[in-house]
Amino acid sequence: MEKLGANPANSCPLTPLGFLERAATVYGDCPSVVYHGTVFTWSQTYRRCLRLASALVSLGVSRRDIVSVLLPNVPAMYEAHFGVPMSGAVLNSINTRLDARTVSVLLRHSGSKLILVDPALLPVLQDALRLLPPGHQAPRVVLVEDPHEKDFPPAPASALTYERLLETKGDPEFRWVRPASEWDPMILNYTSGTTSAPKGVVHCHRGIFVVTLDSLVSWSVPERPTYLWTLPMFHANGWSFPWGMAVVGGTNVCLRRVDAGEVYDTIADRKVTHLCGAPVVLNMLANAPEGVRRALPGKVRILTAGAPPPAAVLGRTEAIGFDVSHGYGLTETAGLVISCAWKGEWNRLPASERARLKSRQGVRTPGMAEVDIVDGETGRSVPRDGSTMGEIVLRGGCVTMGYFKDEEATKAAIREDGWFYTGDVGVMHPDGYLEIRDRSKDVIISGGENISSVEVESVLYGHPAVNEAAVVARPDEFWGETPCAFVSLKDGAAATSAAEVMAWSRERMAGYMVPKTVVFRAELPKTSTGKIQKYVLRNLAKEMGPTRRGVSSSKM
Amino acid sequence: MEKLGANPANSCPLTPLGFLERAATVYGDCPSVVYHGTVFTWSQTYRRCLRLASALVSLGVSRRDIVSVLLPNVPAMYEAHFGVPMSGAVLNSINTRLDARTVSVLLRHSGSKLILVDPALLPVLQDALRLLPPGHQAPRVVLVEDPHEKDFPPAPASALTYERLLETKGDPEFRWVRPASEWDPMILNYTSGTTSAPKGVVHCHRGIFVVTLDSLVSWSVPERPTYLWTLPMFHANGWSFPWGMAVVGGTNVCLRRVDAGEVYDTIADRKVTHLCGAPVVLNMLANAPEGVRRALPGKVRILTAGAPPPAAVLGRTEAIGFDVSHGYGLTETAGLVISCAWKGEWNRLPASERARLKSRQGVRTPGMAEVDIVDGETGRSVPRDGSTMGEIVLRGGCVTMGYFKDEEATKAAIREDGWFYTGDVGVMHPDGYLEIRDRSKDVIISGGENISSVEVESVLYGHPAVNEAAVVARPDEFWGETPCAFVSLKDGAAATSAAEVMAWSRERMAGYMVPKTVVFRAELPKTSTGKIQKYVLRNLAKEMGPTRRGVSSSKM
Repeated sequence: MEKLGANPANSCPLTPLGFLERAATVYGDCPSVVYHGTVFTWSQTYRRCLRLASALVSLGVSRRDIVSVLLPNVPAMYEAHFGVPMSGAVLNSINTRLDARTVSVLLRHSGSKLILVDPALLPVLQDALRLLPPGHQAPRVVLVEDPHEKDFPPAPASALTYERLLETKGDPEFRWVRPASEWDPMILNYTSGTTSAPKGVVHCHRGIFVVTLDSLVSWSVPERPTYLWTLPMFHANGWSFPWGMAVVGGTNVCLRRVDAGEVYDTIADRKVTHLCGAPVVLNMLANAPEGVRRALPGKVRILTAGAPPPAAVLGRTEAIGFDVSHGYGLTETAGLVISCAWKGEWNRLPASERARLKSRQGVRTPGMAEVDIVDGETGRSVPRDGSTMGEIVLRGGCVTMGYFKDEEATKAAIREDGWFYTGDVGVMHPDGYLEIRDRSKDVIISGGENISSVEVESVLYGHPAVNEAAVVARPDEFWGETPCAFVSLKDGAAATSAAEVMAWSRERMAGYMVPKTVVFRAELPKTSTGKIQKYVLRNLAKEMGPTRRGVSSSKM
Repeated sequence: MEKLGANPANSCPLTPLGFLERAATVYGDCPSVVYHGTVFTWSQTYRRCLRLASALVSLGVSRRDIVSVLLPNVPAMYEAHFGVPMSGAVLNSINTRLDARTVSVLLRHSGSKLILVDPALLPVLQDALRLLPPGHQAPRVVLVEDPHEKDFPPAPASALTYERLLETKGDPEFRWVRPASEWDPMILNYTSGTTSAPKGVVHCHRGIFVVTLDSLVSWSVPERPTYLWTLPMFHANGWSFPWGMAVVGGTNVCLRRVDAGEVYDTIADRKVTHLCGAPVVLNMLANAPEGVRRALPGKVRILTAGAPPPAAVLGRTEAIGFDVSHGYGLTETAGLVISCAWKGEWNRLPASERARLKSRQGVRTPGMAEVDIVDGETGRSVPRDGSTMGEIVLRGGCVTMGYFKDEEATKAAIREDGWFYTGDVGVMHPDGYLEIRDRSKDVIISGGENISSVEVESVLYGHPAVNEAAVVARPDEFWGETPCAFVSLKDGAAATSAAEVMAWSRERMAGYMVPKTVVFRAELPKTSTGKIQKYVLRNLAKEMGPTRRGVSSSKM
């Protein structure tokens, strides 16, 4: 028995990339990706991805190179999830809401060789490229035209466009580049996490393979679903469903923007069966006016995660007829690894009680090895009493390999004790279901996006009049939370207004990160060692009551 | 990026054993295992498996020791699939229809430390133990009593019984033994039936983890199915469904024996939704007389594999109302790795054409990395023409680690080119679906032409009087070999003659494929899993002596 082990036939790398070739064989004539009048079949998508992979190779992209995408949920975005790693490169999806400065920082940090960009995001990219330091090799830009957006200007004749690239450099018979090891990197996602320095989360082929099958089983996804892309694919790779849809031969219905009317229309017209979204999407669907809502075409299943959903929002969404499942994951787990697995007997409870139970994050998914909540000081499991808080820790096949070029952050998160420390705080209920009580204290979650308070503060600290700044979450009726800044001013700077601080911020960070509330204080509360007491400020922000909709951008 | 890779949080071993603990949390009060009046819940099953694991440890069983089971599909058999490996030991399920001599050979070869045995199989085991060579340390015997079998004698007072073991030595709070590596052995299955020398197929935790999730996704198993155990669990570990049922919280309905009446009654009374079985089980259900059949309680899905099912049998089974899926796997792949993934457009075809398409084995499952059919001489892929035969080769995460104490057999099957050679012969159709034509040794070579015995049999199954058919090679002075058919007839069809069957065949196949000999038998010899024992028939055909040129028919 000692002599038996890994061998050439059973140790070939676990990878999700083979799912596509299989989909082309089994679902060849079925729709794969739909976007307005554009409909691809699985056999076309397979060949387009092979074209993309071979075109990248012909442009000089090689194993472990970074290829970035700055795209909304359009067909090219779907194709990148297979086509880029099929060239051997690592896919780096960039949040489309970032400002040019941050995009520039990410391109520099990743050393990206090539970027696919949407026409609407080209100006941001161009600004980002100008901000690259002298001597830095800028990535090659490929413009992904959108024939369905009549307002977009035509691509300059000199521009390398996506379709031209596939047509002139793409080989639909390309033998795709298989990973040499299942631990080869495949994905690089930057978190807008808890610190100002961007952290590049790296996932390998094995991790994506495991989370993809696990997510399908955990959500009981049947064959041939019609899946609506309300969740941005750049957000933790759409929780693994780009690869999952190839497994089950689903139809990927693409949407450039998420708006209640368009979502309801698409659900009804395309007979959508499945969609994912942060609680803010559920809130949008639940609060849509009568005239905007459409009758659901059948059973429509929604998977929500990304922020703790208020029970009231879950309740309202189910009252409309959606079948909501709730889970939890991080960019570092490449998808959901905790889910509120539903018990039949709970169906007999009143709606409000059902919503309360469903708002708990739940239990580990089958593919995740272990989950616990530990005391930060002792490292021991907290009691299962539903009230003792501790940090959520995880281990399993889809946990990140670590942070790109950041050994310190990697060591802080992945410890010698074999756990990944999430930085999220929760409680364990007596029935073994966990519930998040406070996303790691300083993070603000606005519309499903994590906002680093430290990052916002560091900008505020750059304002000439600001003495000290602390940013915490303030409840918001629509976004869940918005950033609220407490600021003390330098002597002689009393004339500075809140509006001025906001305007100043708007020029220096993405719109969603700009504080929607600015409170001036003579001094900020501090501990004896001089640390600002954020929990005091958080309570003050709560006492102000929620901000209301319409304050800023309605863009998601 | 070079520095990132496996780390303590993401490289914890992939294993199916954690599925049970999760099932106890999520499905704690739901039925797990049902056997006549005995109903366990998932939380009970979890605690019973922990008791079993800890009891084994207390009896001195340690990591990598072999623990055997000689049991029908009773609750203890289910529990062994978790409880034995949770002690660190390797589970060795023994075919319950083997004779004492073979059981003795297996116990000696495996060096089994302990065996769980059914009262009905105790005499065979006792004979097997007596046949062990002097000095060989016999395994400790644990008798699994069955309170539902009134005819069984009570266990001797001296006997160590299963329930007494769990009660006196079992600790329901035991911390189960996690594998040190995902490549640690977990399963040892001896292949049986078709060859004389048993080979011990070893699977590791990783392989079982992969095949379990893969099989659930591939068969689209929903949450909380009611699963009827018509497939013996000793047969390739019930194609991974003992572990899969814990993932989805299914109800395992146990059956000691598979008989048409009991199967129909159980399906109707327990509202069964899923079951697996070799084609012989389908045949049994399809040919059951009117009085035995019961109306199906709803959609009942059958997964069949283990032998190529004749299209006629598939057609008859579906006509009754079963929803049949067809796949292919080997003990060496721990479950099905090829499945006839169904295409919606095929539903528009006539029933006979649907059955023909469904009788093809199909395409690789999502979790299997690669499948091919290669020319035995050149090792190159055969053309996708549906007629050129070659050997089926596989690679993927659930391929066996090799054969226990048999380096030669391991090397012959797992080659340096990275493929596992199945020994099965098939063709690749133009649409990428493969079809098995034979075990390589079952191919009949007549006048230089390869004849697929399966192909001839599938025609014979279409004859209205034929119950079962098996075709083997009979020596021929001129052609080398000719097809020889062994046939059992349906009740009341005794009048059918060999000449009639040959004439009927001649209208439906090439002349060289028509059986030159037709032998009628009341029953065909079978293995415990329902596979017809072709080597027995081949020997009979040889004993008849060679056919002569121009001479046909020889009725026994």
